[in-house]
Amino acid sequence: MTIGDSFSITYTFSANGQDEAMLIARNISLEQTAELPEDAIPDSLKSYTGRVSPLQEMENGTWNCTITYPCEVAGGEITQFINVLFGNISLKPGIRITSVNPGKLLPLFPGPKMGLEGIRKRMGATKRPLSCTALKPMGATSNYLANTAYLFSAGGIDIIKDDHGLANQPMSVFKDRVEKCVRAVQKGSRESGKRSLYVPNITADSSTLMKRAEFAFENGADGFLIAPQITGLAELARVSAAFPNVPVIAHPAFSGPYTINRNSGFTPEFYYGYFWKALGADAVIYPNAGGRFSFSTDTCLEINRMCRTDHPGIGRAFPVPGGGISRDTIPALVKSYGNDTIFLIGGSLYQHPEGLLEAAKEFRDYLVTAG
Amino acid sequence: MTIGDSFSITYTFSANGQDEAMLIARNISLEQTAELPEDAIPDSLKSYTGRVSPLQEMENGTWNCTITYPCEVAGGEITQFINVLFGNISLKPGIRITSVNPGKLLPLFPGPKMGLEGIRKRMGATKRPLSCTALKPMGATSNYLANTAYLFSAGGIDIIKDDHGLANQPMSVFKDRVEKCVRAVQKGSRESGKRSLYVPNITADSSTLMKRAEFAFENGADGFLIAPQITGLAELARVSAAFPNVPVIAHPAFSGPYTINRNSGFTPEFYYGYFWKALGADAVIYPNAGGRFSFSTDTCLEINRMCRTDHPGIGRAFPVPGGGISRDTIPALVKSYGNDTIFLIGGSLYQHPEGLLEAAKEFRDYLVTAG
Repeated sequence: MTIGDSFSITYTFSANGQDEAMLIARNISLEQTAELPEDAIPDSLKSYTGRVSPLQEMENGTWNCTITYPCEVAGGEITQFINVLFGNISLKPGIRITSVNPGKLLPLFPGPKMGLEGIRKRMGATKRPLSCTALKPMGATSNYLANTAYLFSAGGIDIIKDDHGLANQPMSVFKDRVEKCVRAVQKGSRESGKRSLYVPNITADSSTLMKRAEFAFENGADGFLIAPQITGLAELARVSAAFPNVPVIAHPAFSGPYTINRNSGFTPEFYYGYFWKALGADAVIYPNAGGRFSFSTDTCLEINRMCRTDHPGIGRAFPVPGGGISRDTIPALVKSYGNDTIFLIGGSLYQHPEGLLEAAKEFRDYLVTAG
Repeated sequence: MTIGDSFSITYTFSANGQDEAMLIARNISLEQTAELPEDAIPDSLKSYTGRVSPLQEMENGTWNCTITYPCEVAGGEITQFINVLFGNISLKPGIRITSVNPGKLLPLFPGPKMGLEGIRKRMGATKRPLSCTALKPMGATSNYLANTAYLFSAGGIDIIKDDHGLANQPMSVFKDRVEKCVRAVQKGSRESGKRSLYVPNITADSSTLMKRAEFAFENGADGFLIAPQITGLAELARVSAAFPNVPVIAHPAFSGPYTINRNSGFTPEFYYGYFWKALGADAVIYPNAGGRFSFSTDTCLEINRMCRTDHPGIGRAFPVPGGGISRDTIPALVKSYGNDTIFLIGGSLYQHPEGLLEAAKEFRDYLVTAG
């Protein structure tokens, strides 16, 4: 097996010394491939079980381990790659994935079609940070939500997305909402003199997902919101590939268990900052520090950095911190996170004493000035 | 809102006294619906945010809380139900879901089409426990795997499934493997005088998943293996609904983060024993105690109990403990788990000193005697 036809995954775990660490590493590679004890694998098939690189001891008995697998084990499919990445070992405590080097598997990962640069170009915003908000609350009618969308766009917010909890409820069925919000955002954009994007939530089972994407696209929506952990991660790649000129924003609903436990799952910067981007997200919403979620500011900075890194063959995506961002905290956050960020504010705009239009203008003005 | 048009979810979390517990509970219901602070929700829409039932204090500062939601919030879709169930709160530490009362949402959950009784009937085994094994290892050719399948069926194992790591790799592409293994298992069944089932792994992205299911069905396969956490949970329901006469076996790959952390996610008995069954699994593989996974025997007994419980409108499924079951431990396990169990043994059969045929016969004989 040469490096040319392989890919590698880097894991961290705790172990009591080099020997135990090597045993854990070897067990990971067996679990994820042959799923047999070493002595039950024919010699001729052992190369498929991967190769453990020299281990690195980190602090506090934590070990870093990279395992290189032949590309064949992923069978050219995202679903099987996910299985090799974290299928059975997800059932074992204490194993965390920190990075993947796709090597010759790179073609499996479409990467964002528009990416950070494509969204900037679409918005006509070359340098400044972008503003984003969500249409809420669940239970409101399409007329109510469309009026909200109108006020946000008239106030100049860049991206107005459905809340991820808006699906096809009887209070606001998908098609009616999309038609009304598209018109509302176009009207608001004319008034503000600045194009706002309307991004409906297309999350659904696979037979409905693509129909919603098509309907939204044909009816003038400007992007898609999708919760890939709910649809299945491969569906993100499917949607992105089918609509290369439509920005796809990934939402982290249902993904927490993979990222919020420090000793297992994935590092948030790998999962949201690299993997979802590699699967096709042009922008990735993640739970921001300082609010009701649990990530640290350092973690958020790392997610931002990974999203913006121009990974070869994959490219760059916009990080979209959401949660815990308010009209008061946005100035400090822009300084800390920098311009290549889409700032998502929800509740704080709805609480503005002077209403949604004023809230939107204030938010827009701040980001235009900041840039 | 009356109980008739609602469903409820029960959560556990830690809190410092009744007031804090009530605050957490209310924040859960807001996070999962309006996703707005209470004061930003119009009065007329507040009913959509759910209703917190009286809290129960358990031991060690843990609280039990049931929230009742109007059915409309789920919008008649499994994906949106998952979002209300554990979308954004999955990003917050310390919240665990223990049960769901589907109420009027029951039609959303197809339940198993064949279920425990259907599989028993198909096997002609009215009372005894069933045997199951997996074709391995990844990297083997279809001829090699088919020969393995032949030996297992000639030895009389009830269910012979693809290992969940067999997808469409070049060493054994899906169609070739299915054709060869179907023939091999039919041949072995004729020799043993007892029908074995061959269950290929159809896990793939949604555009391929259904094609694999159709190909497998049309070419004589006897069931489908699917890893719902990889495909997306709603795909399990799609496959189950499309093939009501084909047993669907769910595999837990990639699902660990939802179930192995004691203080967050889902209880394993709810997730594997109830939810996956409700989504259409006729049999559910879960990581067994005593081997390389982390569940306790009590947890496994609870998963078994939930799978077998005849939940109204949903029915019963077979529990399939896998991992850590060997030729030596099976006698004690049959006593402990009882007859309504499919016992999945992998590695231990492959390690049998007298080969696969003898290993299979021994396994079969034991379960026939036990029943």
